[in-house]
Amino acid sequence: MTHLFGGLEAGGTKFVCAVGTGPDDIRAEARFPTTAPAETLHHTIEFFRQHEGLAAIGVAAFGPLDLRHDSPTYGHITSTPKPGWMNADIVGPLRQAFNLPIGFDTDVNGAALGEWRWGAGQGLDTLLYLTIGTGIGGGALVGGKPIHGLVHTEMGHFRLPHDVQADPFPGACPFHSDCFEGLASGLALEKRWGAKAETFGPNHPAWALEAKYIGLALMTVICTLSPQRIILGGGVMGQQHLFPLVRAETQQALNGYVQSPSITQHIDEYIVPPALGGRAGVSGAIALAHMALG
Amino acid sequence: MTHLFGGLEAGGTKFVCAVGTGPDDIRAEARFPTTAPAETLHHTIEFFRQHEGLAAIGVAAFGPLDLRHDSPTYGHITSTPKPGWMNADIVGPLRQAFNLPIGFDTDVNGAALGEWRWGAGQGLDTLLYLTIGTGIGGGALVGGKPIHGLVHTEMGHFRLPHDVQADPFPGACPFHSDCFEGLASGLALEKRWGAKAETFGPNHPAWALEAKYIGLALMTVICTLSPQRIILGGGVMGQQHLFPLVRAETQQALNGYVQSPSITQHIDEYIVPPALGGRAGVSGAIALAHMALG
Repeated sequence: MTHLFGGLEAGGTKFVCAVGTGPDDIRAEARFPTTAPAETLHHTIEFFRQHEGLAAIGVAAFGPLDLRHDSPTYGHITSTPKPGWMNADIVGPLRQAFNLPIGFDTDVNGAALGEWRWGAGQGLDTLLYLTIGTGIGGGALVGGKPIHGLVHTEMGHFRLPHDVQADPFPGACPFHSDCFEGLASGLALEKRWGAKAETFGPNHPAWALEAKYIGLALMTVICTLSPQRIILGGGVMGQQHLFPLVRAETQQALNGYVQSPSITQHIDEYIVPPALGGRAGVSGAIALAHMALG
Repeated sequence: MTHLFGGLEAGGTKFVCAVGTGPDDIRAEARFPTTAPAETLHHTIEFFRQHEGLAAIGVAAFGPLDLRHDSPTYGHITSTPKPGWMNADIVGPLRQAFNLPIGFDTDVNGAALGEWRWGAGQGLDTLLYLTIGTGIGGGALVGGKPIHGLVHTEMGHFRLPHDVQADPFPGACPFHSDCFEGLASGLALEKRWGAKAETFGPNHPAWALEAKYIGLALMTVICTLSPQRIILGGGVMGQQHLFPLVRAETQQALNGYVQSPSITQHIDEYIVPPALGGRAGVSGAIALAHMALG
């Protein structure tokens, strides 16, 4: 029997709700702007109410989130600067409205899980999905499940070597200045070069520097997580010409230290774009619903 | 019923073999220098042959290792520079000699598992054990199991910010110069300051710099793995006065970004020394035997 699932991609600017079985079978979809929590969740609940026979609902949300099942604030967004959303309860109103299993995780863990189930990470034990857009975030699966641990991963916020002679830009992160996100996000690109990255041609000097930082960051996650594949999504990675540069920088950064054919010989299949493209967000939410059903 | 296990701590300078049920019940032990593989494994097998009724044997070995069960070279040490040991088969000779489940993992994953079972990481889902000695390595557990993924983690080899004005030492790593190990291992301390770290008093300027690098490295693993606790072992961390400095540097590096009470309020219980001390290696090997039995 094929179950029908609800998926909510709860983003900071818009909510996308869908009903379906997977990325190739979305039977209904609705999107509305992220206004106040009560209003936005009201629209969400109204949408899902129109669809009978859901087996579970999955929520892939912007964070940071409380994912600890034994916490009184499980299912809440926690310390977001987004007005009105600090400590907003997402799962609670859905639980009250529907007597269904509710899956809940970060948008990036959802995206990783969607790619693992239907996309570029199928069958892998250990997978990293990294989105490089306005900000940088990442979701990691080990044993086919998102890592939670203390809270959840914050893949944009570790530090990298930053040669201020070669790149005097001080970094754009309000917390850490020149962490990975501070140096390499779409926002950092725009601030460093004074124009939006979409307007740069492929020979713009921004790209070599960008690939260098991404390569150093991938070295870090290869050393700390040893993923079997790395999927790079997000608006910045929409620049397809970045992939070969990033692969070369990653190899150069590792310098032969990790002796795996995936890195030394087949890096084209190791660092890859997402397979689900524009459906990644909603697919991730539906994948979380799958997992919630068990 | 309490099972009796064999544990082999296969180190680069010595092999330690033990029989017991856990760190508080080691019934026999033998140690011999790491000479050629055939000779050293011969001694190992002779030791275990003297003990009847073993339920499983665990091996915690120096690496890098092939841990992929479906690989033709599973159970081998792979690309070590140690003469004679490149591609040495560790598990094969033990399998031939004993009809027992054989657990096999890196020394640091073993140590993490030992601390998880009997020491400072009991009951946690996600745990990091980092050893800072002559070299730097780390083992991470997710869901109570070591992460393998592509190969295994290499926690000493990600890069950190390195202010060459403040610290002109170029780094000691032959692969990456100023990676974490290259900047902060015992070997790096000795090369930077021209003397062994054990000879420095607690007010030596080495320690503030050392704590800064370790704090930046812990920020990295907190962002990429989100461990519920971090255990710091190894000879350098034998300097107990480093712990408060490392905790403060970790908090400063994160700058309030990861809003968990473990970091903001209870960091004394979050970044801790190992509980098993000198028994960590053999305990790790016995813990791997436990896991192999299932």
